Amino acid sequence: MANNIPSLDRLIDSFASLPGVGRKSASRFAYHVLDMNEEDVIAFSEALAEAKRNIHQCPICHNLTDSDKCSICEDERRDRSVICVVESARDVNSIERTHEYKGLYHVLHGLISPMDGIGPEQLYIKDLLHRVADEDIKEVIMATNPTVEGESTAVYIGKLIKPFGVKVTRLATGVPVGGNLEYADDITLYKALEGRSEL
Amino acid sequence: MANNIPSLDRLIDSFASLPGVGRKSASRFAYHVLDMNEEDVIAFSEALAEAKRNIHQCPICHNLTDSDKCSICEDERRDRSVICVVESARDVNSIERTHEYKGLYHVLHGLISPMDGIGPEQLYIKDLLHRVADEDIKEVIMATNPTVEGESTAVYIGKLIKPFGVKVTRLATGVPVGGNLEYADDITLYKALEGRSEL
Repeated sequence: MANNIPSLDRLIDSFASLPGVGRKSASRFAYHVLDMNEEDVIAFSEALAEAKRNIHQCPICHNLTDSDKCSICEDERRDRSVICVVESARDVNSIERTHEYKGLYHVLHGLISPMDGIGPEQLYIKDLLHRVADEDIKEVIMATNPTVEGESTAVYIGKLIKPFGVKVTRLATGVPVGGNLEYADDITLYKALEGRSEL
Repeated sequence: MANNIPSLDRLIDSFASLPGVGRKSASRFAYHVLDMNEEDVIAFSEALAEAKRNIHQCPICHNLTDSDKCSICEDERRDRSVICVVESARDVNSIERTHEYKGLYHVLHGLISPMDGIGPEQLYIKDLLHRVADEDIKEVIMATNPTVEGESTAVYIGKLIKPFGVKVTRLATGVPVGGNLEYADDITLYKALEGRSEL
């Protein structure tokens, strides 16, 4: 899409680099930006630079934060004997939204995936083992996604943690609430049957 | 989605203000930005501010440009006797992509829509009439969308231009190439029948 306007093309290129955004959506976004108030565009531009500048990983759990430690590690009311291990910082938000979990987190920033050349040493697994060894941890919940990589990462880490005498658990897999058995895939249904509980 | 990180929330808000982007996609974009190289984020941030600063409307046709006149108005090789009237600057690009049209454009920056409180005086219709009156124009192609607002805007402008003795034409409506009659709506099919041509 040659607009003959280099600064517009650069903006479209930037939008097109976002996940799941093609050239058409990117150009829609860019034209929308040109229709926005100047202040809003400046605010957007600053939000980008500022977020990248201010936000870094929490040195304890590798969740994202803009201060020394993340808000969860700093919160005195959290249960410090449970660690929930997740793939990404976004998963922390998903679990926080349930308002059900009161423990700490550990963000791996990836999953073991030999196909993509990601081994255990590229993830923050060593830091997790240090936390389990040094602190008074009673349970580690493996909350990686129920995918091949998620499962194998959970199993791998579980094997490393068990020798410390810590309980290792895994999120339940089954039919989602509001779902329909007819549309559930075979493995999900198999897992739901296998993990059935008494009424 | 409370992240407890104000600069992240601000970035998510900015992305969520884009058309068709909900909170979930906006947060996906924001986390992606945090994973990007610092230079790429700075480039993105500057592209936003720069595009808004540099790009303005062409004083002749109201297409977007970063110089005095838009590249089409400045191009000596364009046929200066034909004007194609479109709703937005994006439509100029769509028509340019066909490489079929060699005339000039006029961008209305909207359509007449009493429901949204947009009357003819909010669009660049007066400028179009000045062009038709002052320059040697032979044809005006009404290329607004084939919607209720697009049609009525085309008819309205057509009535104003005809007294100048200029030919006013309208884009053909019909079944799109590669389309399927089975899925075409009744009005499109009716228009396609009405506008049939001899083989």
